[in-house]
Amino acid sequence: MDERELRAWAYLSRVAEPPNRALAELVAELGAVEAAEAVRKRLVPERFRAVLRATEARADNDRAAIDLEEAARVGARLMTPDDPEWPAWRMLPLDSLDEPAAPLVLWVRGAGGLDTLADKAISVVGSRAASGYGEHITGRLAADLVGGGWTVVSGGAYGVDGAAHRAALAADGSTVAVLACGIDRHYPAGHDRLLTEIARTGLLVSEYPPGVSPAKHRFLTRNRLVAALGRAVIVTEAGARSGAANTAMWARRIGVPVGAYPGPVNSAMSVGCHRMIRADDAHLVTDAATVVELAGPIGELALIDPSPRRPTDQLTIEQLKVYDALPTVGDRAVAEIAVDSGLPIGDVRAALAAMDVAGLVRSDGALWRLV
Amino acid sequence: MDERELRAWAYLSRVAEPPNRALAELVAELGAVEAAEAVRKRLVPERFRAVLRATEARADNDRAAIDLEEAARVGARLMTPDDPEWPAWRMLPLDSLDEPAAPLVLWVRGAGGLDTLADKAISVVGSRAASGYGEHITGRLAADLVGGGWTVVSGGAYGVDGAAHRAALAADGSTVAVLACGIDRHYPAGHDRLLTEIARTGLLVSEYPPGVSPAKHRFLTRNRLVAALGRAVIVTEAGARSGAANTAMWARRIGVPVGAYPGPVNSAMSVGCHRMIRADDAHLVTDAATVVELAGPIGELALIDPSPRRPTDQLTIEQLKVYDALPTVGDRAVAEIAVDSGLPIGDVRAALAAMDVAGLVRSDGALWRLV
Repeated sequence: MDERELRAWAYLSRVAEPPNRALAELVAELGAVEAAEAVRKRLVPERFRAVLRATEARADNDRAAIDLEEAARVGARLMTPDDPEWPAWRMLPLDSLDEPAAPLVLWVRGAGGLDTLADKAISVVGSRAASGYGEHITGRLAADLVGGGWTVVSGGAYGVDGAAHRAALAADGSTVAVLACGIDRHYPAGHDRLLTEIARTGLLVSEYPPGVSPAKHRFLTRNRLVAALGRAVIVTEAGARSGAANTAMWARRIGVPVGAYPGPVNSAMSVGCHRMIRADDAHLVTDAATVVELAGPIGELALIDPSPRRPTDQLTIEQLKVYDALPTVGDRAVAEIAVDSGLPIGDVRAALAAMDVAGLVRSDGALWRLV
Repeated sequence: MDERELRAWAYLSRVAEPPNRALAELVAELGAVEAAEAVRKRLVPERFRAVLRATEARADNDRAAIDLEEAARVGARLMTPDDPEWPAWRMLPLDSLDEPAAPLVLWVRGAGGLDTLADKAISVVGSRAASGYGEHITGRLAADLVGGGWTVVSGGAYGVDGAAHRAALAADGSTVAVLACGIDRHYPAGHDRLLTEIARTGLLVSEYPPGVSPAKHRFLTRNRLVAALGRAVIVTEAGARSGAANTAMWARRIGVPVGAYPGPVNSAMSVGCHRMIRADDAHLVTDAATVVELAGPIGELALIDPSPRRPTDQLTIEQLKVYDALPTVGDRAVAEIAVDSGLPIGDVRAALAAMDVAGLVRSDGALWRLV
C-alpha cells in the first residue's frame, strides 16, 4: 500500500468516532483516498450527507502522518480490509448505527497474524474486580484452551481479562487484547508490562488511532470486537454490573455462542453469570471441555465426563432387592432373603445366580454372601 | 376405622414390597379387609394373579398386630387413603411397576398433619457428603423457606438433608422427613436426636412398617415420595453420584419442577448440580426467591433482583460520548469536547443541556464540568 493510501486510511480512522456506517459506505463507494479527500473538502455525494455531520468536529484535524509515525514508534501498524491478515468478520452488515459493524481499520501491534489467531479463538471475559475463585478458574480455562491450540482473546483489563491473558502467556499460548484506547496507550497503567508482553508474542488490537483516551462508550464499542473475534464468548465471573454482560449481548447479536461459569451463590461476583444462565442468555460451562463443545465442532469433541460406576449399577431392581437383603458380614438362606426382599423364592434364586456369574455374590451350599 | 380394618391395612403394608401395582388394584377392587383375606388364603380373582407372586414370600408372615403395637409404642400411626390427612398425590396412575405409584399406606409419626404440611412444601435434597458451602446454602434456603411459611421436606440423611431439617427446626418451621426404613427406626443412627425432634414438631413419614431395614432399593423408592411431597425439588449440592439425581428424575416424571444450586466449578460436590443444569434437567436457582418462583404461583411472587443503577445508565450514546469527554477534574470548552467525542458542536451543546437538567454536568459560562 502506498503512503498516500495509508495516510487516507489513517485520516479516516480518526475523522469519525468508529464505527460509523455512513463513512464506511462512503469508503466502500469511493475508496479510501477519494473518501478522505471528499471528507477533507466537505464535498461528499448527496446520499452520504450523514458523513458531513459525523466528521464535522474532526475534519480539519488531520493527524494522519503523526498517527502513523506514532504507531511505527511503538511497533504498531495500520491494518485495512485490503490486508491479507484482515479477518473474516462475523459482524452483521452495516444496517444502522446500533448494529454490530465491522471496523473500518484496525491498529495492531505484535507478532501474530490476526487472521490466524482469530481462526481458532475463544474470548474470555469477566469482572475487573474478580475474586480469587474467578482468577483461578479463568487462569485454568485459559491455560487449558491454549494447551488445545486455541487463542485467548480478552480486553486487557484488570481481573478476569488479566488472568486470562497471563495464563495464556504463562502456557506459551497465543493471546489477543482488544483495547478501548489508542494502540500506543497502555491502559490500565498497572497492565503496562502485561500489554507489552502480549504485544511481544500475541497481538494488541484497537479501532482507535494513537493517543485516543479510553472512555466508557469506547469500552462498549470495543466489546463487540472481543465478541466477534472468538468462536465463543466465555464469562468466567461477573457481578451484577459487569461489562461482560455487554460483550455477551454483542455475541448473541452476531451469533457467537455465550458460556458462563457458575460460582458460589453467596458470591456477589457470580451474580451476573447466574443471571445470564437463568435468562438463557448463556450456557453453563465448567471447564475447557464444555467451552470447546460450546464453540462448536472444528475437529475437536469435548470429552464426555462419565459418571463413576459402581458394581451394583448394572443390577435390575429385583437383583438389587436381593443384593440389599444380603448382610454386609456373614451369609443368609434363600428363604430369608425372599421374605426380606419380598420376592418369590424362584426370583431370588434367579437373581442370585445372575449375580454369582457377575462375581457379586457367592454361595457355600445353601447360604449366600456378598463377595 | 375399626381394628379389623386397621389390621388388614397393616398386613397389606408388609405383605408385598411397596409400591405394588397389582396389590393396590386388588385393594381398590375388594377393599382392604377382603383383599387381605384373599392374599392370606391365596385365593384372588384370576386377573389379580400377579398379587400371588408379589406376596408369595411374606403371605404367611402376618405381623400386623405386632406392627401396629410397635408403631403405637413409638408414637406412630398408620395412615390410609381413607384418612382425611391423606394428601392429594401428584403421582401418575398405576400404569406399570416402573411408574411413580402413590403409596398404599403411610406410617407417620409426629404432630403435623401431612395434608396441611404438603400443601405448601418444597423438597430440599442433595449429597450426604455435603461441603461446608453445601450445608451453608442449604441451611440458608431452608430457613428462608420456613420463614415464608413453607414446609421443608427431605430424606433425613446426613449432609444436605440434615442441614435442611436442622435449619427448618432452628427457625421454628415445619419439616417432614421421608424415611427409607421402618417408622420406628432412626436411620442414620447419628440422626437419632434430629429425627426425634422432627417427630416432635413436624412429621416422619414412611411406606415401610416398623422394623424394616433401610436398603438401597428402598432409598430409590422413597425418593419418589420426597419428590411428590414438594411443589418443587431443589438440589442444593450434588456430586457426580448423588441420590439427589434420582429424586430429581422422579420429580421430572411427575411434573414437579426441579431446581439446582450452582457452586464452584472446582468443587466435586457441585458436579451433579452443574450437570443437571447443563442437561436442562434442572433450573438454576440461587436463593429462596428463585426457588419460590420455580415452585409456581400460589400467592407469592419472587422479588425481582434489580441491577444496581448508575446515573449514566440513562444517557443516550451521544450524551455518553460527551460525558466521557469531560475531565474527571477541571473543565473543558465545547469545541474541545466536540473534537474528543467526534460529535458536531450542535450535538455537544444539546447533550450538555440535557445532562445539565439531569444534574450530571454544569457550566461556568463557556466551560463545562462534571458534577
